[in-house]
Amino acid sequence: MEVVLIGSGSVATHLGLALQARGIAIHQVYSRNITNAEILSKKLNASFISDISDIYMDADIYFYALTDNAFKSILKKIKLPNGIHVHTAGCIPMTEFEGFSSKYGVLYPLQTFSINKMVDFSQIPICIEASNLEVQKKLFEIGNLLSNKTYLINSDQRKKLHLAAVFACNFTNYMYDIASTILEDSGFSFEIIQPLIAETAEKIKTMNPYEAQTGPAVRMDEKTISKHLLLLNKKPDFKKTYRLLTKNIYKRHKKQ
Amino acid sequence: MEVVLIGSGSVATHLGLALQARGIAIHQVYSRNITNAEILSKKLNASFISDISDIYMDADIYFYALTDNAFKSILKKIKLPNGIHVHTAGCIPMTEFEGFSSKYGVLYPLQTFSINKMVDFSQIPICIEASNLEVQKKLFEIGNLLSNKTYLINSDQRKKLHLAAVFACNFTNYMYDIASTILEDSGFSFEIIQPLIAETAEKIKTMNPYEAQTGPAVRMDEKTISKHLLLLNKKPDFKKTYRLLTKNIYKRHKKQ
Repeated sequence: MEVVLIGSGSVATHLGLALQARGIAIHQVYSRNITNAEILSKKLNASFISDISDIYMDADIYFYALTDNAFKSILKKIKLPNGIHVHTAGCIPMTEFEGFSSKYGVLYPLQTFSINKMVDFSQIPICIEASNLEVQKKLFEIGNLLSNKTYLINSDQRKKLHLAAVFACNFTNYMYDIASTILEDSGFSFEIIQPLIAETAEKIKTMNPYEAQTGPAVRMDEKTISKHLLLLNKKPDFKKTYRLLTKNIYKRHKKQ
Repeated sequence: MEVVLIGSGSVATHLGLALQARGIAIHQVYSRNITNAEILSKKLNASFISDISDIYMDADIYFYALTDNAFKSILKKIKLPNGIHVHTAGCIPMTEFEGFSSKYGVLYPLQTFSINKMVDFSQIPICIEASNLEVQKKLFEIGNLLSNKTYLINSDQRKKLHLAAVFACNFTNYMYDIASTILEDSGFSFEIIQPLIAETAEKIKTMNPYEAQTGPAVRMDEKTISKHLLLLNKKPDFKKTYRLLTKNIYKRHKKQ
């Protein structure tokens, strides 16, 4: 199977590495930025291009790991080669390929990727969607090769999954970022709070997060809340966040 | 060493169990609610009271695991026995004991506790503070018995640590709660997102959370953000949360 990787960001990098580790060679890497294209192509022993019109025409699968805008701009720029065209985005409908190709689909790995942080792909839920049964079969094969968990999920459902992921991952990470900043400003190492972060994430494997809620907001401890708000006087964005989340948690758990 | 436990909530429960497991017997449990007092005293093979004036007078240490209000109300109700008086709260200054006792301190376990979720106390950072060196020595002994990490931390610093913990734990759990609700409303099991939650928490052991930030807000992906906001139309509190956190993350990462 010959694969072309369109994109050079963190998803392209980790998908490329995972495919390669399972014996699927990456033939070519494209990135608008020639330096990025070269960096990733070296990791993958692939050739690289920075002009999309130089795309290799005979690959079996083209993976698009791009932002929404970059993805749409490429569809407009070239006539898509034969082969299967697959994007990896949570929030782009599969039908964006309609009219550009007849064999297309989605392979969305539900995970957070940073270029230099290794991940165990076998634990990542892979959400696939396909324009026809032939593509579906191929994407299931690749999904099962990459991971123990491959799901057939349509674009509408995938968008909701992606929304949930923004809360569970991106916004959660922002909470860590605020905690880290408060600790640093107070002379603490971030390390002191890591057992708490680990237990918070561990707890919801066996408890519903609603039931797992603790803290001043859920017990309506106004004195503690006031003291915390005072400490945040010089951090208006953190303070707004504290206020809103405290109010929401209180409302959500208030006895009727 | 004879210990009296004042309180019957999750901190009292897990502190009592951890002390017992290290060979420190709990002599008596107090709770305003006689049922709760009885439940916890059974777990700890201790006697129980629901009238604070029945408190055992000859204990070596009295642990107060109470809300701010309940704590203050007890100090007013009785003349404190001899022995060392120690509270476990993140946000109550040690000096609240001043005038009520001469030997007092704080033992604050930096962790989230729910009554029926077991925790490994040996991994919990224990923050202690003491009114004199004798009490400090005793609290270090207990801290080291309970955990591998005991720190001497004053009330002002402890308050900041507690504030960071609210973000890293309580608000993070609320993000999980929102994600879980979105998934449930969309017919998904919460399980599908657990590898993502685990990796998000794991990632910041080796990366700064600021560097680890991913998602539509940090890459200013307006199309995805608009689609997500539309999905949240019937959940105004989730929508406000999404808007504020997206704005904050964007501001925090915007190139100058």
